[in-house]
Amino acid sequence: MRSLHSRCGFNDVEEGDIVRVRLKSGEVLEGIVMPVTEFSSEDIIIIKLSNGYNVGVSKNNAEIEVLGKSKTSVVKEYPMERTKIEGKGSLKLAFISAGGTIMSKVEYETGAVRPAINVSELIDMVPNLLDIVSYIEVEEVFRLLSENMTPKHWEEIAKIVAMKFMDGTDSVIIAHGTDTMSYTAAALAFAVQNIPGPVILVGSQRSSDRPSTDAVMNLRGSITVAAKAPFGEVTVCMHGHTSDTYILIHRGVRVRKMHSSRRDAFQSINDIPLAKVIPTTGEFILLNKDYIPKSKDRNVKLRPRFSDRVFLLKAFPGVDCSIIEYLASVGYRGIVIEGTGLGHIKEDCVPVIKNVVDEGVIVVMSTQTLFGRVNMKVYTTGRKLLKAGVLSADDMLPEVAYVKLSWLLGNVNDVDEVKKLFVSNLVKELGNIHHENYFPRWYHG
Amino acid sequence: MRSLHSRCGFNDVEEGDIVRVRLKSGEVLEGIVMPVTEFSSEDIIIIKLSNGYNVGVSKNNAEIEVLGKSKTSVVKEYPMERTKIEGKGSLKLAFISAGGTIMSKVEYETGAVRPAINVSELIDMVPNLLDIVSYIEVEEVFRLLSENMTPKHWEEIAKIVAMKFMDGTDSVIIAHGTDTMSYTAAALAFAVQNIPGPVILVGSQRSSDRPSTDAVMNLRGSITVAAKAPFGEVTVCMHGHTSDTYILIHRGVRVRKMHSSRRDAFQSINDIPLAKVIPTTGEFILLNKDYIPKSKDRNVKLRPRFSDRVFLLKAFPGVDCSIIEYLASVGYRGIVIEGTGLGHIKEDCVPVIKNVVDEGVIVVMSTQTLFGRVNMKVYTTGRKLLKAGVLSADDMLPEVAYVKLSWLLGNVNDVDEVKKLFVSNLVKELGNIHHENYFPRWYHG
Repeated sequence: MRSLHSRCGFNDVEEGDIVRVRLKSGEVLEGIVMPVTEFSSEDIIIIKLSNGYNVGVSKNNAEIEVLGKSKTSVVKEYPMERTKIEGKGSLKLAFISAGGTIMSKVEYETGAVRPAINVSELIDMVPNLLDIVSYIEVEEVFRLLSENMTPKHWEEIAKIVAMKFMDGTDSVIIAHGTDTMSYTAAALAFAVQNIPGPVILVGSQRSSDRPSTDAVMNLRGSITVAAKAPFGEVTVCMHGHTSDTYILIHRGVRVRKMHSSRRDAFQSINDIPLAKVIPTTGEFILLNKDYIPKSKDRNVKLRPRFSDRVFLLKAFPGVDCSIIEYLASVGYRGIVIEGTGLGHIKEDCVPVIKNVVDEGVIVVMSTQTLFGRVNMKVYTTGRKLLKAGVLSADDMLPEVAYVKLSWLLGNVNDVDEVKKLFVSNLVKELGNIHHENYFPRWYHG
Repeated sequence: MRSLHSRCGFNDVEEGDIVRVRLKSGEVLEGIVMPVTEFSSEDIIIIKLSNGYNVGVSKNNAEIEVLGKSKTSVVKEYPMERTKIEGKGSLKLAFISAGGTIMSKVEYETGAVRPAINVSELIDMVPNLLDIVSYIEVEEVFRLLSENMTPKHWEEIAKIVAMKFMDGTDSVIIAHGTDTMSYTAAALAFAVQNIPGPVILVGSQRSSDRPSTDAVMNLRGSITVAAKAPFGEVTVCMHGHTSDTYILIHRGVRVRKMHSSRRDAFQSINDIPLAKVIPTTGEFILLNKDYIPKSKDRNVKLRPRFSDRVFLLKAFPGVDCSIIEYLASVGYRGIVIEGTGLGHIKEDCVPVIKNVVDEGVIVVMSTQTLFGRVNMKVYTTGRKLLKAGVLSADDMLPEVAYVKLSWLLGNVNDVDEVKKLFVSNLVKELGNIHHENYFPRWYHG
């Protein structure tokens, strides 16, 4: 048993420890140390008391004593078996879990959040679910924190999505971690085309054991979208606001995680969201009429392969252009540069780029401004890049350009055909006109 | 003489060509072909007629004939010699040109925009300038499109800025290209501390020969800031709105170019702008009271060196972790990862990262969400990264983290000291509290 005094020893206390805290006031508390969250202060630990309440204890005002380790983990990791649940409605729904916070609870071994939730909890989150669906097929494909998702996983998910649609499903919901959700959404948008209903990636920024969780509302929103959306697109369904006022449905090839912790982190870039859902009324409001309608048939166009030989290279002032030669030398077939401004990288990279392009590597220019479009015709550097054979990502996000090129190189053998398709608008990843309201409004006093 | 028919041949016409255009209506126009801008359509060329008007001609409705090449270039490249101009006011001002669009005009040789403007034109842009200043020292340091700016250039500029302040200057204005303006601003903020007045980077998104230019208003705004600002910080001074209603002054370590072409492309991230200027009235409005005040002395703290052995690595789902080993093997001493979400990269990179950290490479985690802060304590992957020795960039922009680490490794020998300083708040590049209004408002219907 460790006996720790304030300040010095407090840092040795671990989540899941059973502790006795003696406040300066003389009061004594006993409970389990709760995990750190993104809002935790360095100076405060949170203790769950036996009555269920959490209290924060300042390290400066207390002595702490570790009594033992919490033995019963709060989390039970039910495997999410392949399950088909019948309902009384008409919607044929597939629910695929790939993991992430939405499928997560706190786990006391490390005190961190890890994926795990079960089917019945999931169904409990959506009242009337069984009144809406004819059936819901539930399947856990992966149990991954999404930073661990790779192009190989995209392939797996794409195949399952296509299979579900071919089997008669109206809509596919995918629970997914938020870190790389927009990458997976873009990947599926290219890999699974001509679909008879929406694919809806849904996640949460706060795990479902926390009072501020967005898991429940996002999940409910995704069911509404499955039931009411007119589009056959791959989408992302997340909070539109920090409060619970509405859910946004973003086009998968136009969305980006723009905040590390806010519940409304996901925002459309160079586009407006496809729709919003009002959770109190279940109302579905179409915002963007320029959508891909549902396919009338089930001839899903599945091209699920992705090359893992594409690199997303961010330009920065000190970048040593030899990195481009290195990437080509170790077998990269595509390089997406996240350039500056209208699509630039320093001019002395141009000869190096020309060399690798001549060797058959496809080099694409996108912009780290995220908003706006690449135009390499305006400035001298851009013209030289164009002449060296660099393709423009136009108004595609760098991440989407990376996914698109990985997909093209995975499915198309002819390099000229890859180049032609790269600059073509395949699933509305490119836009003609940028409206004034595409650029958000910053606070300026 | 080339004779070109619509569609097929139009693409061979080059800017600066003197052409005769025969419209389908029978009308004939003669003029000089104007350069492409970021708003140009692929199907239209712009011709400047002898009466000075520009007309757009659709490629589908005209035949074009090249009569010759425009011989007299419209641009005269006056060198901007080191000049000191005396005024009747009290402000001691240094104006340094590093190049960029603000110092640019169209050049007809390639049809593109290249840096060049002269001192008298510059002074003409700001009415009453000589009533405000005691003197203005003008000096062209570089004539660079800013994508070509490197850490070596930052060193040069930092030394000149320090020298100007030590010589009695009240404020230093730096004309700079917008592509990497925020990188240079951050670099100067670290390299030149304890300054007696503001350093103001000013640029433009549209060159001064274009009717929509923002050069004049931004330049005027920068003079107002030089005269009225209470802070001794390195700042960026650019349009706050697409219309000419106000100019924003951003903290150099908190600003980012967020649009490739809009005049209000520069926005503060995880902070609010320091101030705004109303150009019609010359009013200076302080927005952010949390600024670094002007130093009372001229003991400028100059530490101008930057290591060029720091890499800014963007995490993406297919990233091959061996890139990290490669970077260490070719002598990189710092790697700033632009991770996902709260600060993650896929878990199988952790052992590779641990190896390079053990070899003495400093690895930093920032986030590609840009908004919000890194917190590696919340999820398992983050905890493993922390344990491997990865430092958190907290709420610093990835680009600022890259600049800061380059600066620390350039000026501080002891690795532990570098690590300590990296996580310390030196020039308000880190923030304690994020207010609701730091996150911009997107259009949601």
